[in-house]
Amino acid sequence: MSEIQVLLVAGTHGNEINPIWLFEQWDKLAVLINTYGIATHKVIGNPKAYKSGKRYINNDLNRSFVKQSFSKTNHSNFEITRAADLLQIYGENGENPCQIALDFHTTTSSMGSCLVVYGRRASDLALASLLQSKLGLPIYLHESDDAQTGFLVESWKCGLVIEIGPVAQGLFDSRIISQTKIILESCLEQIKLVENDDVFFPDKLIVHRHIKSIDFPRDSKGFINGCVHPLQQSKDWYPLQLNDELFLIPEGKTIKFEEKETFIPVFINEAAYMEKNIAMSLTKREVWEFKSEWKKALFDLVQK
Amino acid sequence: MSEIQVLLVAGTHGNEINPIWLFEQWDKLAVLINTYGIATHKVIGNPKAYKSGKRYINNDLNRSFVKQSFSKTNHSNFEITRAADLLQIYGENGENPCQIALDFHTTTSSMGSCLVVYGRRASDLALASLLQSKLGLPIYLHESDDAQTGFLVESWKCGLVIEIGPVAQGLFDSRIISQTKIILESCLEQIKLVENDDVFFPDKLIVHRHIKSIDFPRDSKGFINGCVHPLQQSKDWYPLQLNDELFLIPEGKTIKFEEKETFIPVFINEAAYMEKNIAMSLTKREVWEFKSEWKKALFDLVQK
Repeated sequence: MSEIQVLLVAGTHGNEINPIWLFEQWDKLAVLINTYGIATHKVIGNPKAYKSGKRYINNDLNRSFVKQSFSKTNHSNFEITRAADLLQIYGENGENPCQIALDFHTTTSSMGSCLVVYGRRASDLALASLLQSKLGLPIYLHESDDAQTGFLVESWKCGLVIEIGPVAQGLFDSRIISQTKIILESCLEQIKLVENDDVFFPDKLIVHRHIKSIDFPRDSKGFINGCVHPLQQSKDWYPLQLNDELFLIPEGKTIKFEEKETFIPVFINEAAYMEKNIAMSLTKREVWEFKSEWKKALFDLVQK
Repeated sequence: MSEIQVLLVAGTHGNEINPIWLFEQWDKLAVLINTYGIATHKVIGNPKAYKSGKRYINNDLNRSFVKQSFSKTNHSNFEITRAADLLQIYGENGENPCQIALDFHTTTSSMGSCLVVYGRRASDLALASLLQSKLGLPIYLHESDDAQTGFLVESWKCGLVIEIGPVAQGLFDSRIISQTKIILESCLEQIKLVENDDVFFPDKLIVHRHIKSIDFPRDSKGFINGCVHPLQQSKDWYPLQLNDELFLIPEGKTIKFEEKETFIPVFINEAAYMEKNIAMSLTKREVWEFKSEWKKALFDLVQK
């Protein structure tokens, strides 16, 4: 009998409330979620920000899992303390050690249901392959972005971010909740199938590999002076090509996409990324052959 | 020559940023907005909340125009102080007295472009008639709601709220900005036509009169335990009838609309109204005959 334990996190960003609400309803009604017998620990990532209706208090919690920061000098920073606490409880050597972390987010972008994978860890790619095979989810592979580090799931041996949108922050949407429930249950189902050695892996994985992010147009003082063009709004996952309309300047001028290469944009107009100077991220769609070592890594983790 | 002055307010709620951005761009490029020669004063209603990325600091500014509150004892409440300050500058006896106030908002509800009128002041109804005649805008007539008072525009002799959605809070959307610009210019155009005595009034006004608001379903502890049903989401302005799906409880149970009368719902799932215990408001659609005294009231105000 395996002792796999899965950490389920909602509200890593306090104003992404739909997964939090699903967890709360699950607390009240145990049969709401089929866990397929997998042991889970569910937490609200940033309860203080949730209570305040904010994304975070001092720092983005999902950029705070940087072990070098976990010193006593940072105890005034809520998110860094919270990251250290979560690791102390649910980390590899914690009181309730979890091997897999699933981190449930929402976005104001029209991303639909998708997965975010950080880097190329074999066990992440194996679990993502299973979910893509079952549900058809697109995958955003986030890597090579030195400006963005310290993600929660990277602190567990295997971990995926689930992103679902569009939904405003602080707003309940039954469709988003229903999509969250489907992915949550599918993750646990696939982990159970791995545990039972009864799983089908696809022979390929389609990823949208992060290439770079682009900022809004700005005036000489650094203020945003153009919005995402209406023809580009909600066009996450659609190819962005030379001369496509990209931004609209108020007096009516259109800024077009000037690169010769075609990219697939994601996180177009995510409200929380404005402070990170990101209007959208550009990816390349790649089809990867499934590798047997991915499967081995996930099996080693789950079956121990 | 009339001396009509129009107060234009964006960001009465600090996280409704699209009108603020339009005003900022207008500051940089005077020709961006055609004012039709009307003297305007534009302000950011709640600059402190805007900087904090929040709806408000201590209190909803758009419920803070309650003159009884403007005593020195309230100086620790930012919004009450701000309301008093705005009136001192732009009120009837202020340094820059404005006769008309236009307050630009956005909503997470699928309201499209619409006007909110508070009560039945003749000049408000006249201006709303002109805008409905020009643009076809639906009008939400807010009255008989003792739980909701202290609205900004009520402190000016004539005032309308412009609501545009859906858009998430804190998110730029060029379509919302473009819709805001159209209504702003149309308001000023119509005021100019009144000034020039060159205006066409329609013979009827269609209003959606507020009847009551309804709350989310709640559990025994008062926590929300059901969302707006997916079949009802985004159905602002559509008739809501007996047995229509209204809320969805997580375990799959549907709560249906139980009233025999048909209502027209508005502000379905506005994120900021959750704290006000409002899942949506119910209205009755009424067609009113245009009254000559409405026209007279607006003419008296504009032509002085």
